[in-house]
Amino acid sequence: MTINTRLRGVFSPVLTPFNADLTPSVDRFIRHCTWLLKQDVGLSIFGTNSEATSLTLAEKHRLLDALLEAGLPAARMMPGTGFCALGDAIDLTRHAVEAGCGGVLMLPPFYYKGVSDEGLFRSFATVIDAVADARLRIYLYHIPPVTQVPISLALIERLLKAYPGTIAGVKDSSGDWNNTAAMLKEFQPAGFDVFAGSETFLLANMRGGGAGCITATGNVNPAPMVALYERWQQEDADEQQRALDATRAVFQQFPLIPAMKAAIAWKTGDQAWRAVRPPLVELDAGQARTLEGGLDALGFRMPHVEDLM
Amino acid sequence: MTINTRLRGVFSPVLTPFNADLTPSVDRFIRHCTWLLKQDVGLSIFGTNSEATSLTLAEKHRLLDALLEAGLPAARMMPGTGFCALGDAIDLTRHAVEAGCGGVLMLPPFYYKGVSDEGLFRSFATVIDAVADARLRIYLYHIPPVTQVPISLALIERLLKAYPGTIAGVKDSSGDWNNTAAMLKEFQPAGFDVFAGSETFLLANMRGGGAGCITATGNVNPAPMVALYERWQQEDADEQQRALDATRAVFQQFPLIPAMKAAIAWKTGDQAWRAVRPPLVELDAGQARTLEGGLDALGFRMPHVEDLM
Repeated sequence: MTINTRLRGVFSPVLTPFNADLTPSVDRFIRHCTWLLKQDVGLSIFGTNSEATSLTLAEKHRLLDALLEAGLPAARMMPGTGFCALGDAIDLTRHAVEAGCGGVLMLPPFYYKGVSDEGLFRSFATVIDAVADARLRIYLYHIPPVTQVPISLALIERLLKAYPGTIAGVKDSSGDWNNTAAMLKEFQPAGFDVFAGSETFLLANMRGGGAGCITATGNVNPAPMVALYERWQQEDADEQQRALDATRAVFQQFPLIPAMKAAIAWKTGDQAWRAVRPPLVELDAGQARTLEGGLDALGFRMPHVEDLM
Repeated sequence: MTINTRLRGVFSPVLTPFNADLTPSVDRFIRHCTWLLKQDVGLSIFGTNSEATSLTLAEKHRLLDALLEAGLPAARMMPGTGFCALGDAIDLTRHAVEAGCGGVLMLPPFYYKGVSDEGLFRSFATVIDAVADARLRIYLYHIPPVTQVPISLALIERLLKAYPGTIAGVKDSSGDWNNTAAMLKEFQPAGFDVFAGSETFLLANMRGGGAGCITATGNVNPAPMVALYERWQQEDADEQQRALDATRAVFQQFPLIPAMKAAIAWKTGDQAWRAVRPPLVELDAGQARTLEGGLDALGFRMPHVEDLM
């Protein structure tokens, strides 16, 4: 197995800011990505929390190109490139690889339910064979609460055997630690990098030999996550984990994407940040106040927030 | 309420045939659509059973254009135009309306789960407002077993109030007759046309005042469905319904899309018809034999099958 590029650490599915007309706000997007990188957070653009499926293929091309043109390092990017239509997945994956992205995070086709491992194997194989580029590194995106299409251990084993080097790891957003633990045991020793799907399991994942986490709330609370990633072997690690959990719990009182956007709008004073695309709905004023109160009670702050303005 | 175009009868989510390289087979598609129209079955191209979500937006444009260029009547078409990304939904819906399609069948955005009626209302409203064409007729596509995103009665009521005339009806693929009955009672009298999501409920739907059915197996067993639709008030209607149910049960032993394609391959001798795109998998030889045996036992035939060759 020859994995040369190894992405590790804390990544965030980068929130996609919108203008008042719900077109993507390219300027805010570049600023937000730049801010995340400054905190040592990698860029999983086009993830679930990026409202990626609410963006057209053309919009994703434009946003990725905008980051590249702004000089942001492709090696720190792990764009989501999974689609229901494999032709779209091939298109965006190819673009990401040619741009030098460190990896791609790939959803399985998620419309049909109850599909077989054989069908899912063919889905990933179709994309890999079509892109046909040795630089391709795929992180499988296991998020059954949303897709309802799980990526089983047996499927990972088969993909690793067929495409060693290309199948680089997984984001486990099952919310089931037993599943993450099984992936760590079965596949991490062979160089398949297991990322926890949220910071909730960051410490446990690091203790199990994992590669880090890819987490929504990295968009708003990156510094303490990166600190725990770097110092997970120190004795205050459990305490740091508990602090992360407390902050996350405040966000999770509400739908997470609108809540994170509301927090950025609050801290930056830029109300445009509140906007989400349908079928999501922004927080109302009362919800936003409750969120702010809960975060204030924890002493929540966003360092260098001025860089987002 | 001013609904001028009323689609009624039996429609089928038209199977999308593929070539050996899994590109859409345009010739077979045109022949199949022509054959369906000859049996009095309307064309719900780009439905669930069309593998619509496995097609790119550009492929859908090309397939619709191919039918129009072949001279097939747009008034008998109800293309599926729902996408997770509303920009795509607007694009294809606009094209369908400008082409003169009798209606469009619209999925809600289906990636995010647990979204609110407010978010779904905004989703449909965004498309309607952007297309901004009085000819638009939307049939809402309620298929919670697949999307996991239901279209509630309260949402229909709100959409009907906001967009009378444009919100034209529903395909109810919930599989829950109580839900269909509630739609018939609440909305059909106001000119909102309720289509059963399969022929299983065709007779019950007609007795309840509904508009017909939109059904997968219309692709392979259209004549008896159209016969029941036309003669549902005759005394042998229950017997006809039972015969339809028996045929469907044979197909439903297997994943439905590959099974229907296998049946067409069998009856036409054109093995290319077996192909499906991942994540679906074609029937294997043993499954195909079981299917053929079950259909033979019922005396199953496809009239004018030579038109498909």
